[in-house]
Amino acid sequence: MSNQSIDVLDCGYVKLVESYGGDESIVGAARMSTGGEFKGWDSDAKLLKYLYKHKHMTPFEMCGMLIEVKAPIMVFREWQRHRTQSYNEMSARYIPLPNENYVPTIERTMQTSSTNKQAQGVKTVDRDAAMGFISGLKYDYQRAESLYQRSLEDGVPKELARLILPVGRYSVMRANANLRNWLQFLTLRMDENAQWEIRQYANAVGSLISHLFPRTWDLFCDD
Amino acid sequence: MSNQSIDVLDCGYVKLVESYGGDESIVGAARMSTGGEFKGWDSDAKLLKYLYKHKHMTPFEMCGMLIEVKAPIMVFREWQRHRTQSYNEMSARYIPLPNENYVPTIERTMQTSSTNKQAQGVKTVDRDAAMGFISGLKYDYQRAESLYQRSLEDGVPKELARLILPVGRYSVMRANANLRNWLQFLTLRMDENAQWEIRQYANAVGSLISHLFPRTWDLFCDD
Amino acid sequence: MSNQSIDVLDCGYVKLVESYGGDESIVGAARMSTGGEFKGWDSDAKLLKYLYKHKHMTPFEMCGMLIEVKAPIMVFREWQRHRTQSYNEMSARYIPLPNENYVPTIERTMQTSSTNKQAQGVKTVDRDAAMGFISGLKYDYQRAESLYQRSLEDGVPKELARLILPVGRYSVMRANANLRNWLQFLTLRMDENAQWEIRQYANAVGSLISHLFPRTWDLFCDD
Amino acid sequence: MSNQSIDVLDCGYVKLVESYGGDESIVGAARMSTGGEFKGWDSDAKLLKYLYKHKHMTPFEMCGMLIEVKAPIMVFREWQRHRTQSYNEMSARYIPLPNENYVPTIERTMQTSSTNKQAQGVKTVDRDAAMGFISGLKYDYQRAESLYQRSLEDGVPKELARLILPVGRYSVMRANANLRNWLQFLTLRMDENAQWEIRQYANAVGSLISHLFPRTWDLFCDD
Repeated sequence: MSNQSIDVLDCGYVKLVESYGGDESIVGAARMSTGGEFKGWDSDAKLLKYLYKHKHMTPFEMCGMLIEVKAPIMVFREWQRHRTQSYNEMSARYIPLPNENYVPTIERTMQTSSTNKQAQGVKTVDRDAAMGFISGLKYDYQRAESLYQRSLEDGVPKELARLILPVGRYSVMRANANLRNWLQFLTLRMDENAQWEIRQYANAVGSLISHLFPRTWDLFCDD
Repeated sequence: MSNQSIDVLDCGYVKLVESYGGDESIVGAARMSTGGEFKGWDSDAKLLKYLYKHKHMTPFEMCGMLIEVKAPIMVFREWQRHRTQSYNEMSARYIPLPNENYVPTIERTMQTSSTNKQAQGVKTVDRDAAMGFISGLKYDYQRAESLYQRSLEDGVPKELARLILPVGRYSVMRANANLRNWLQFLTLRMDENAQWEIRQYANAVGSLISHLFPRTWDLFCDD
Repeated sequence: MSNQSIDVLDCGYVKLVESYGGDESIVGAARMSTGGEFKGWDSDAKLLKYLYKHKHMTPFEMCGMLIEVKAPIMVFREWQRHRTQSYNEMSARYIPLPNENYVPTIERTMQTSSTNKQAQGVKTVDRDAAMGFISGLKYDYQRAESLYQRSLEDGVPKELARLILPVGRYSVMRANANLRNWLQFLTLRMDENAQWEIRQYANAVGSLISHLFPRTWDLFCDD
Repeated sequence: MSNQSIDVLDCGYVKLVESYGGDESIVGAARMSTGGEFKGWDSDAKLLKYLYKHKHMTPFEMCGMLIEVKAPIMVFREWQRHRTQSYNEMSARYIPLPNENYVPTIERTMQTSSTNKQAQGVKTVDRDAAMGFISGLKYDYQRAESLYQRSLEDGVPKELARLILPVGRYSVMRANANLRNWLQFLTLRMDENAQWEIRQYANAVGSLISHLFPRTWDLFCDD
């Protein structure tokens, strides 16, 4: 992690744009309920822990983080199902998406999951098959790009030319959420049942949070 | 429209699954504020109009509709940005997506927009170019399907094999929203600035609403 | 429970207005993800349980319930913090609130809580003090009503005359939510840390749900 | 306005706690869609205006503001119906609410509205009646406080002793929202149909926004 931008997968990243508040904002907001204020961590570490353990989560809505993310469309399809975040994404209606596409490694392709049978293949994929998949993928990514560029040159509207773009293609977005909703995102997307790819993004988001909200992060990890 | 299923594009549809409440539920909920009840349309048509015109929209949250939609992934990408609906979508992590892909007509491909320059091509697309695009699209859709099937047979996890699937491929989902949120969806997606494809879906949703909530629909159309 | 209206506290109630979907809608929506349909409870009871236990909650957003509630303002203040429900409430800006006010029983007033020390008194309240509180409350409720009526007669705007109304006064609202959000409401408001009064309302909501969605209710209770 | 705290009504205030982003964050987020960045106001003032006028509101979710508010319960009842804000409020379950209660001025009490007949009195209130209302209100506020204090001393649980508290009593909360949702709040609550009291709070919120997001504020005011 340098300059708060974290590389993810082969071409992606998660980058901090802005944050507001911190662990002490949570305590400050919680003290609203009893008319008090943040008093310092000697006494307030216990309060923060109490809030988290007893699921008093509204104070965790009083700080947050805005990030920029580059990820395959497939990952964004999962990500944007979270309805408590705000999104602004690059649009292939308005600008041709750059020719960057996610190619998994051989190891990732051969990975098996002990927890999610449904997402697995019908049989174990061997090294040759994994290599075959990857080279087929690269080849077809380029075919799709060729048709895309030819169509754009021929004057086909961008919003139609994009039909052939694969869900492995990278896009970029900004996402804004408060800390409570980021934690909920991480609970679902760092889970071993989540797809490996989005888990890498969730881990990167978690890394940013661990720097910005270290005390809350510790409570989250202990949970 | 037969059996409340409406064909959209070449392989898609919008189908009513369930609805609750009706125009009179809106009046009944609005009368909560003054301690009254629905009194019949002779006196309440005026109240419904008043609510709509003065943007008292919470009573329109007291009825709703649940639909099933088959549409290209590209359309779902736009649709699911609406965060006030509930979604359940077919998942290519768990089941191979059937080989159905959206192929626009020649007329659609040649269509130009007077309102949205950005989404257009760099020049007007002529008939030959449009036909070239369509046949290229069909051909590459099949290539993508070949790689997809071969990868699945080789044991590549479904969640990775799908990387090559184009955003023109059809998927299926259920969507649930209250009437207020459906109207907000239609306001944005029936607009001439919306992409032609999602407008066809919005029109179909509007058609269902016009049958279920005819008085509200009339107010919406007059707006 | 008669005619699906349930009495709560001394003057309140929870009443079913409308519901949509049922346990089988949840399964039907979940089967979207694998392209299937509801198959009957012999095989689908297991699926419903799986969904619930593994927190796959979006299918539980595909059915719901609309209710009418009469409760003290104090209870509505807690209730309406739930931001995933739709509300329409009687408004004292537009109509004078009827003179009905919550008077707790002696037993309730003397109740102590083992789980929530903060909400308790500084000492145990004895029977005489409880009776004193109740008769003081009744007396002051009537004084507030006198000032309220006199002000209204003098032409003071309703929206100002209401300033003296106590938070123990009853109001009425309709509330609409999907099943997932009702269960979340119950998780927080049936909890022993919730105030006893709103717990009585939550229990009534739970009773309606147990009739409408019996299989989901069983899973909720086992949780 | 000193130190970004603004007095409202007789005992209330609106105070800035924290803000994030600014007008340029909106442009930066909007440029996501075409792969660009903020370029300086010479060229981007036009883009900001375009976004606002054409209701492309998601970029306005990329900045926001966290405030503290002291207001009568009656105002909070209206305010907290906005479901896109985060709230933490002082709770009378846990701490006795201080004896501060909203007393309108004679002028306010005699005010008539040309736009909202329902909220008005049955006749015009004259000066004597207004003075009578105000002194009655003050007297009954103190009676309520006496019962409240006596009950607390007798050991009545705080969560019950509060039943007699009037909706004119002040409470305190923190509220967090993004700019889009603040503007929506202002659209409804600065409107002449909103109650005069909450309009004063909305004006104070608007004043904070005008300092933090001056270009967006100008567009809002021109709307």
